[in-house]
Amino acid sequence: MDLTEHCISTEDLAKGDFLCVKRDQVRLPSGHVSQREYVTHPGAVVIVPLLNNGNVVLERQFRYPLNQVFIELPAGKIDANESTLQTGQRELLEETGYQAQDWVKLGEQHPCIGYSNEVIHIYLARDLKAGVSHLDVDEALEVFELPLSEAIKLIQQGEITDSKTIVALFLTEKYIQNNE
Amino acid sequence: MDLTEHCISTEDLAKGDFLCVKRDQVRLPSGHVSQREYVTHPGAVVIVPLLNNGNVVLERQFRYPLNQVFIELPAGKIDANESTLQTGQRELLEETGYQAQDWVKLGEQHPCIGYSNEVIHIYLARDLKAGVSHLDVDEALEVFELPLSEAIKLIQQGEITDSKTIVALFLTEKYIQNNE
Repeated sequence: MDLTEHCISTEDLAKGDFLCVKRDQVRLPSGHVSQREYVTHPGAVVIVPLLNNGNVVLERQFRYPLNQVFIELPAGKIDANESTLQTGQRELLEETGYQAQDWVKLGEQHPCIGYSNEVIHIYLARDLKAGVSHLDVDEALEVFELPLSEAIKLIQQGEITDSKTIVALFLTEKYIQNNE
Repeated sequence: MDLTEHCISTEDLAKGDFLCVKRDQVRLPSGHVSQREYVTHPGAVVIVPLLNNGNVVLERQFRYPLNQVFIELPAGKIDANESTLQTGQRELLEETGYQAQDWVKLGEQHPCIGYSNEVIHIYLARDLKAGVSHLDVDEALEVFELPLSEAIKLIQQGEITDSKTIVALFLTEKYIQNNE
């Protein structure tokens, strides 16, 4: 079965300072014409900083759209002309102060396939050295650490609900199981 | 540390047929004023239909924002005046034709905390009875089944990258481990 939808035309529905939204006219497999609206996103990187003691470095961060503090892994958007590894190294340092010698790409995830083209690259960062974080004055977050097994428990207890964080911790657990 | 950001004012940045985007002026913990732009979403439900033979029911669906076919679990948006369980039952029937006797809520996930207020409720659906799906003419998807262990392997191999599906399968694996 051919499931492909073909673009007929595209327009900007909104150009915010942060979010861009497009509205495309598309031809469906049925032959009918419909609309698709979606956010365009440069892509992001999420990092699993795993310390030698088995603890993972996490953050508490307020997320305005949900008016709630979330427990999440360090992450951030890819800047222009940046490789995904560079994004990971930059965000880890800025947000937590850590630098890592050992980087392994665990995979990619698509957080919001219904209405965003965002892809999140997932890195495991090990052999960590603590330093000083580089938050700008308007970035407020708390850094803490927890055994990976405790973080997995927090997922099962519903205390960690951020999808990118759950996926990255899950892949980390599997990676460690497969490489022990 | 108080991480809370307070709303000063809110406006519609875009009102599409499907997507609504808001732009709020907010007071940061630093005292500075900044902007937050985000999609408002009614919430959604993802269902893990688990057959008695250990297979999980999955779908192949084209997702226009990424121009790609994804393997994903049945899911859909909550309609007005619908409970999350009703959404799950309706979407499972519409998309796959299955009806389930046994529904267990596994938790909730937030797919896109940076720029959407979407929450996805996660249900495990068992004791399934096959029937006829109710897709409308413009909805194109393929239904298939796979052992849960195979689906987990597809995640590790990077063949399943949809975050909501990965999170729901992960919670299912843990739930089964804990209840065996």
